[in-house]
Amino acid sequence: MAVPNDPQLERPLKPKDGTAGIERPRALLDSLPEDPRPLMSLSSRHVVSSRQFDRDTLLQLFRLAAQYESTPALLHPPLAGKILISAFYEPSTRTRLSFESAWHRLGGDIMSITDARSTGIAKGESLPDIAEMFNNYGDVIVLRNTEAEAIYEMLDSLRIPIINAGNGIDEHPTQAMADVYTIFKWRPELTSPDLPAGKRIRIGIIGVPSRMRTVRSLLLMLAYFASSIEEVAILSHEDNLFDEGQHEELTKAGLSVRVATDLDGELPNLDVVYINAIAWVGDTFEAMGMDMRLSAASPLKKDAIILHPLARGEELSTDLDKTSHNWYFAQARGAVFIRMALLTCMVRRIGEVMDVPDTSRG
Amino acid sequence: MAVPNDPQLERPLKPKDGTAGIERPRALLDSLPEDPRPLMSLSSRHVVSSRQFDRDTLLQLFRLAAQYESTPALLHPPLAGKILISAFYEPSTRTRLSFESAWHRLGGDIMSITDARSTGIAKGESLPDIAEMFNNYGDVIVLRNTEAEAIYEMLDSLRIPIINAGNGIDEHPTQAMADVYTIFKWRPELTSPDLPAGKRIRIGIIGVPSRMRTVRSLLLMLAYFASSIEEVAILSHEDNLFDEGQHEELTKAGLSVRVATDLDGELPNLDVVYINAIAWVGDTFEAMGMDMRLSAASPLKKDAIILHPLARGEELSTDLDKTSHNWYFAQARGAVFIRMALLTCMVRRIGEVMDVPDTSRG
Amino acid sequence: MAVPNDPQLERPLKPKDGTAGIERPRALLDSLPEDPRPLMSLSSRHVVSSRQFDRDTLLQLFRLAAQYESTPALLHPPLAGKILISAFYEPSTRTRLSFESAWHRLGGDIMSITDARSTGIAKGESLPDIAEMFNNYGDVIVLRNTEAEAIYEMLDSLRIPIINAGNGIDEHPTQAMADVYTIFKWRPELTSPDLPAGKRIRIGIIGVPSRMRTVRSLLLMLAYFASSIEEVAILSHEDNLFDEGQHEELTKAGLSVRVATDLDGELPNLDVVYINAIAWVGDTFEAMGMDMRLSAASPLKKDAIILHPLARGEELSTDLDKTSHNWYFAQARGAVFIRMALLTCMVRRIGEVMDVPDTSRG
Repeated sequence: MAVPNDPQLERPLKPKDGTAGIERPRALLDSLPEDPRPLMSLSSRHVVSSRQFDRDTLLQLFRLAAQYESTPALLHPPLAGKILISAFYEPSTRTRLSFESAWHRLGGDIMSITDARSTGIAKGESLPDIAEMFNNYGDVIVLRNTEAEAIYEMLDSLRIPIINAGNGIDEHPTQAMADVYTIFKWRPELTSPDLPAGKRIRIGIIGVPSRMRTVRSLLLMLAYFASSIEEVAILSHEDNLFDEGQHEELTKAGLSVRVATDLDGELPNLDVVYINAIAWVGDTFEAMGMDMRLSAASPLKKDAIILHPLARGEELSTDLDKTSHNWYFAQARGAVFIRMALLTCMVRRIGEVMDVPDTSRG
Repeated sequence: MAVPNDPQLERPLKPKDGTAGIERPRALLDSLPEDPRPLMSLSSRHVVSSRQFDRDTLLQLFRLAAQYESTPALLHPPLAGKILISAFYEPSTRTRLSFESAWHRLGGDIMSITDARSTGIAKGESLPDIAEMFNNYGDVIVLRNTEAEAIYEMLDSLRIPIINAGNGIDEHPTQAMADVYTIFKWRPELTSPDLPAGKRIRIGIIGVPSRMRTVRSLLLMLAYFASSIEEVAILSHEDNLFDEGQHEELTKAGLSVRVATDLDGELPNLDVVYINAIAWVGDTFEAMGMDMRLSAASPLKKDAIILHPLARGEELSTDLDKTSHNWYFAQARGAVFIRMALLTCMVRRIGEVMDVPDTSRG
Repeated sequence: MAVPNDPQLERPLKPKDGTAGIERPRALLDSLPEDPRPLMSLSSRHVVSSRQFDRDTLLQLFRLAAQYESTPALLHPPLAGKILISAFYEPSTRTRLSFESAWHRLGGDIMSITDARSTGIAKGESLPDIAEMFNNYGDVIVLRNTEAEAIYEMLDSLRIPIINAGNGIDEHPTQAMADVYTIFKWRPELTSPDLPAGKRIRIGIIGVPSRMRTVRSLLLMLAYFASSIEEVAILSHEDNLFDEGQHEELTKAGLSVRVATDLDGELPNLDVVYINAIAWVGDTFEAMGMDMRLSAASPLKKDAIILHPLARGEELSTDLDKTSHNWYFAQARGAVFIRMALLTCMVRRIGEVMDVPDTSRG
């Protein structure tokens, strides 16, 4: 098949055209003043839900992520000697490798569980007991589980921090962080608390808030920045788009959320289009919203960006990959750096990468 | 599910009440004088059976484990650059992660096999050939296999040391080390070779010596300390509790082993109660002894401690977790440190953590 | 089973008799002058096929491998902080552990995929998209896949280098490097470009070039050294031994390739006998050529060496293991070092282990 000196075997050293977002953390970094204080409380908490954060903590996490993305090679990796327990009881490549890459780049070691059948769960061990064991083996746990309740059942026994990397149809908060981090790399001015009304953005979400954990966590995360968002349009033909109280919670937090069904009618007014067609149910997934697809022929606003959090199916045409709408590659890349930022804080190593007040050195 | 600032998401930094044993390696450490000489021969041997050890070697391993448990962060990790082959051809979380955590804490790297189907065994490769390959890839092997014979079939081809992490229903010597290490952390005076008769302890083992590798290895390990043990009561309603010669071998080694069936009648006289209800047979397990259960309502001696080596089922009630009888959490924790001690010696790195005579620097 | 002080549990510290090749990289190292220049272009290319190399590049890779094999403990591991994505979508122990051991010995970290079912492929993610993700997570990819086309489908999206560790029945170029490296350790004079005709060797290959990726890659690799090879005899009773054009390509490159069926008639004239009885087809394998077997009773030339690239079946009797014909153990061992050499070059770290001209420091 291959021939000698086949140019296909030459490797491009730079990103291809159209993936502009990959190289742009610098503007975000410069737009945010460093302040380690909001990050210092992260070391005494688990990360289960988007609800646990606030605007200042998130902005400082985004700033640290942008710092890591600007200078990826660390001279003194802050997590040397630390051990991550990467426990994926549900199939994953993207999220598992993204967390593991983040941890390795910080200098730490990893123990992976990639198959529930290879574990004590197969012998009937309870989740609180597994949590008690994990206390002895590692410094942080990243957990993905098909059941929403699983992570909550472990909390009582844990003395080391745990991060929710997807619990059933409930939440996936670090994916939401990666989503918002991407939006702020694209438009750093959106981080301002008093953005003029004319500068606010419209976001379209093709997905189902009640059944997609990524969408649920993203909406909660966007609510912290409601003052920069004119409106969120949920694009779907499904019924029961919201759980009881879900829409009210967002509205109360100041986020304007509207349902729409005419994709091509909405697209010309959207600045950010987020698309996802997979919902996890139990230990399998179902495709939904396949009637709503994006391609280079879609009536996208000239400057609009597209985000896509998961494995791509037919809902997102590859003919968009080389256009300037493609920020989904940047989004996947940024996920590594936002996880590096979060992990650094949770293991009390902020003091190694930021100047923190002496009395509370992280 | 979660709400902002949910106190459940605050992480306790200290162990909960009732798990007192977790913090007590210091007394054991202080009670044993350091002597590296018995440890120095470990680097030229495989570890397959509890039968391979002796009292002095075990006490120095326990001492080194207590030293590691007292100061877990090592400034100069002694196994930097060394590679562990973690070969688990039978499902495991606890033992695999415990060994891998021990190795990572010593600074080494790991290659894991967690599924026999992903390996050359699926292509019909023989065990001696696999052993020959392993010589080239790593510095130590930890093997778990459903067949008792598997590890013996590899020995002839091996130039790097191998540790038996469970071979069928035969042995699991490092688990037995963790068990005895826990007993000695609880009562350091038991390490004395001339304990007064009145101070000797009574140990109850709820399990089946002929079919549980953990029990088989523990009994052999206890025999080295027979002078500190008044009696071992095997508590079971099963038939064929012992293999041919098994009881005789223990008696000959000085250990007094008696069979009993009345759990509640025995409990008031037992200082240590070891309980396990799983026996591995082939590539699955069977529960046994489920008629013998422990709970906070059991007539336990006031100072008695409970040990449990594996995934817990209904045989051990969680209402004991917050009592002072719970030393099974300390036991799981200690397993990491005893494995650190053993691994350090097997890779000839004692000289990096203890003062050894110059002529035979480890 | 074991008894105390069982001599079987004493571990031999040196290779057993008969595996002479294991200790012989020094002669090859001394016979080749160091020249880093041919290696410097490797960092800008993927490694997919044996066709991509040339004589000078291979000889310098063999030299660096011999250097690593002579002094395996590196004071300054050149890949510290680098991440390998070890993606084995087809079962493997030998190749996966060999690559992972090589990477760890160079100081790098690893993320492994050992089961396609645990990955995004299960969710329908395309290979170009997976490649795009991998760009963000690691520094090098090693890929094994059941489909020959898979690696080619990833190339367009990759900015980090990928190495083909077996693609269906197509190629396995690093195994071929390990094979030729072994031959040159055995007879360093074969590296000479002007070997006298009387010194040329005869190689027998028991296998099927059209259906075995190891054989296909080896023949292409041998063609670079055709001036040292009198003849290659393909020993098989199968039909369709060659793909269209395969034999012609080798002949054109100067390699004399002949088919033969009388194994015992050929053996007395062969210097190197390469044997393999497994061909991968789809996601399973078929045994072929089981009518051609080697044993200590085979009429081997006194100085002949035997090579075997994969898991051994009945085609190669273990009674050869302790004879001087056994270079297959040395071959497996050498595979780690040739992969260390290749990986060092692909990550642009030649400058850390060889003197390179300042202007193009690797």
